[in-house]
Amino acid sequence: MIDQIVTQVLSVFSNSVVADGAVKGIPVGISNRHIHLSAYHVETLFGRGHTLTPKKDLTQVGEFAAEETVTLVGPKGVLQGVRVLGPARKITQVEISCTDGFNLGILPPLRDSGQIVESAGLVVVGTSGAITLKDGVICAARHIHMNHDDAQRFGVSDGDRVMAEVDGPRGCIFKNVLVRVHPSFRLEFHLDTDEANAVGLKNGDQVRLPQCEEV
Amino acid sequence: MIDQIVTQVLSVFSNSVVADGAVKGIPVGISNRHIHLSAYHVETLFGRGHTLTPKKDLTQVGEFAAEETVTLVGPKGVLQGVRVLGPARKITQVEISCTDGFNLGILPPLRDSGQIVESAGLVVVGTSGAITLKDGVICAARHIHMNHDDAQRFGVSDGDRVMAEVDGPRGCIFKNVLVRVHPSFRLEFHLDTDEANAVGLKNGDQVRLPQCEEV
Repeated sequence: MIDQIVTQVLSVFSNSVVADGAVKGIPVGISNRHIHLSAYHVETLFGRGHTLTPKKDLTQVGEFAAEETVTLVGPKGVLQGVRVLGPARKITQVEISCTDGFNLGILPPLRDSGQIVESAGLVVVGTSGAITLKDGVICAARHIHMNHDDAQRFGVSDGDRVMAEVDGPRGCIFKNVLVRVHPSFRLEFHLDTDEANAVGLKNGDQVRLPQCEEV
Repeated sequence: MIDQIVTQVLSVFSNSVVADGAVKGIPVGISNRHIHLSAYHVETLFGRGHTLTPKKDLTQVGEFAAEETVTLVGPKGVLQGVRVLGPARKITQVEISCTDGFNLGILPPLRDSGQIVESAGLVVVGTSGAITLKDGVICAARHIHMNHDDAQRFGVSDGDRVMAEVDGPRGCIFKNVLVRVHPSFRLEFHLDTDEANAVGLKNGDQVRLPQCEEV
């Protein structure tokens, strides 16, 4: 056990001091509050036959920020101009920060994307109508997108939970970061605005995986 | 060096598994946005001869939340009902989160309390008047209050920077946590709402100092 610990600790140390570019950081993508809509809900909110209009491509292939925005209405507050992300999905899902939840007056549970059973609800208002979600509102758990080459390089697999280290005056080590591996994924660490603001991260900054020896 | 590392790592492991109560957590105190006012500014905002009315004692001896609240006005937004903390201080200081800063349209620097040179400014409005702060608005750096007994127990000194570990699904290890030692201080880890929401901490929860072997 001691051998194992020493090897692991030394690998972290050596990672920190390597200067030949072998240690690559993971770019940060900060998720502001947003909503994924089903095609049915796109029509309810924006009119019959309506489809989402791409405004800006996101880092992950095929994903885009749409021109459309919605208003989220909770028992205690309202958030306007909440961006719709496309393309349309099978199930509508709202991703907000814990701070947003307080302002709306709801308590979204911390969940991996897609796990919306018994999550929080609220009212979503578009330009042509509104929907009342009984569930579908979550606080998305931070995660890292990567393809199989990245996974091999970091020595991790889909579904692993790893630590991600942030440098700087507000530096921290995030524990329990979910690894999501898919051939189409581009390397990116997704966290929400609470997390980014708490540790002083901006889009384009990088984090490291201190426990993963790169090969 | 290897001996040192092994000792350190094993001490962390043993700390984690001790079950006799020797490893004590540090209670968490979450700082919502607030303002400390000079006696002069108390009068400007609330009327000549006005002094603060204690509403609720805080954990730190002599400190209290006052009945008085103010409105913070920035170039992009307004925050109402911001609590005044007493007693009056020599210099007015506003402590907000980074998220608050975005909403107000200002960029408060991360600072230890009292370090307000070239910090951010804004307008503060009370019931009887307003003040325009050229500086004094900061994002307070997380820190731990403790007395000398605590400091000895944790093996730390005033001004040290330590790591503080948070358990749970959003667990993390905060780096660069300032230790503040004073005979009157009660043991408490202060962090702001961004940090608390990012890691799922609530008032009364506890953090640990993984690198400090308690004696």
